[in-house]
Amino acid sequence: MTLRLYDFLDSGNGYKVRLALTQLGHRFELVEVDIMTGATRTPDFLALNPNGRIPTLVLEDGVVLSESDAILFYLAEGTPLLPDSRLDRARVLQWMFFEQYNHEPSIAVARFWTKHLEMNALQQELLPQKQEQGYAALGVMEGHLAGRDFFVADRYTIADIALYAYTHVADEGGFDLGGFPAIRAWLDRVAAQPEHIPITKSDF
Amino acid sequence: MTLRLYDFLDSGNGYKVRLALTQLGHRFELVEVDIMTGATRTPDFLALNPNGRIPTLVLEDGVVLSESDAILFYLAEGTPLLPDSRLDRARVLQWMFFEQYNHEPSIAVARFWTKHLEMNALQQELLPQKQEQGYAALGVMEGHLAGRDFFVADRYTIADIALYAYTHVADEGGFDLGGFPAIRAWLDRVAAQPEHIPITKSDF
Repeated sequence: MTLRLYDFLDSGNGYKVRLALTQLGHRFELVEVDIMTGATRTPDFLALNPNGRIPTLVLEDGVVLSESDAILFYLAEGTPLLPDSRLDRARVLQWMFFEQYNHEPSIAVARFWTKHLEMNALQQELLPQKQEQGYAALGVMEGHLAGRDFFVADRYTIADIALYAYTHVADEGGFDLGGFPAIRAWLDRVAAQPEHIPITKSDF
Repeated sequence: MTLRLYDFLDSGNGYKVRLALTQLGHRFELVEVDIMTGATRTPDFLALNPNGRIPTLVLEDGVVLSESDAILFYLAEGTPLLPDSRLDRARVLQWMFFEQYNHEPSIAVARFWTKHLEMNALQQELLPQKQEQGYAALGVMEGHLAGRDFFVADRYTIADIALYAYTHVADEGGFDLGGFPAIRAWLDRVAAQPEHIPITKSDF
């Protein structure tokens, strides 16, 4: 049995896992799940992942892992995508928790609402807050990347993959990266890594 | 130089770190920072942690770590609080990312608004959504804990610490744990661990 990834193609969280699997040379089966029609909330899917979310990865022996950044950590252990030192590993996790707490809930959510939904009144009221929080997260990233090529340990790691996923499509959420030159240069460095794939690639 | 923890006593995120430091036998200096008066947004604090948040831990050599669950992982590496197996470590992280993405933004935020703020109109409008999302997170936890003593690897780990922090004070956010017997039994097991401390302990 090969690795099986349950995923929604336009999800940056899913893209992180597709990108890492590809760059680490893993073959996998992509099972597309339409989150727009409730396919992650069916009894069958909830039996797989009780939290009802993609990406969900089923390992060769049937073990199920969820949470994109936990999957990245699992895949990257023992590879160049995760540093060996205890401190650098903590720093990688620090940026991944920043990504899930500060970056994704603002930038990815603003993008999802803008791109995939007819926003309701509450979402329209919240959008400026999402924009403000998203720009604050981008500001923290810009400050860190000034004078650095990558987020941790001077090399490309899963911290870069985690933050690249929604930053490189932030414009789709209404974010203008014009004022963030260090981020733009870093996006180019990430996209230039060997075996890089776009978020739209669907044949695996 | 000893470990120095910048923290706000009522923060569950901070409490996670205080609890782990205590149970691992580390001495540390607690520097209380009043998040209610903007003390995490001063130039001095932002020089320490550009994301302007507690808990922030300064290590013996002056290195700064932030993000509560990344700090937990750093402290727990090589101790009984973090399993050795790659899969169990990924499962610990899976629950910690669940905590920061699903649990904290609903349960902790509802508690913070209820306990520390005069809610504005938008927060009052959002509170029912926070309640619904919080109960959904508690439902996922309850299902997982039915028949299990702890979240991962049949033993007390940092996944339990991370989820205990805001679950044990969920009532302060208006959550009723009456319908969650497995969670209540697990809360008792966590509180019975050696060297357990309450969230209110301030002398270290």
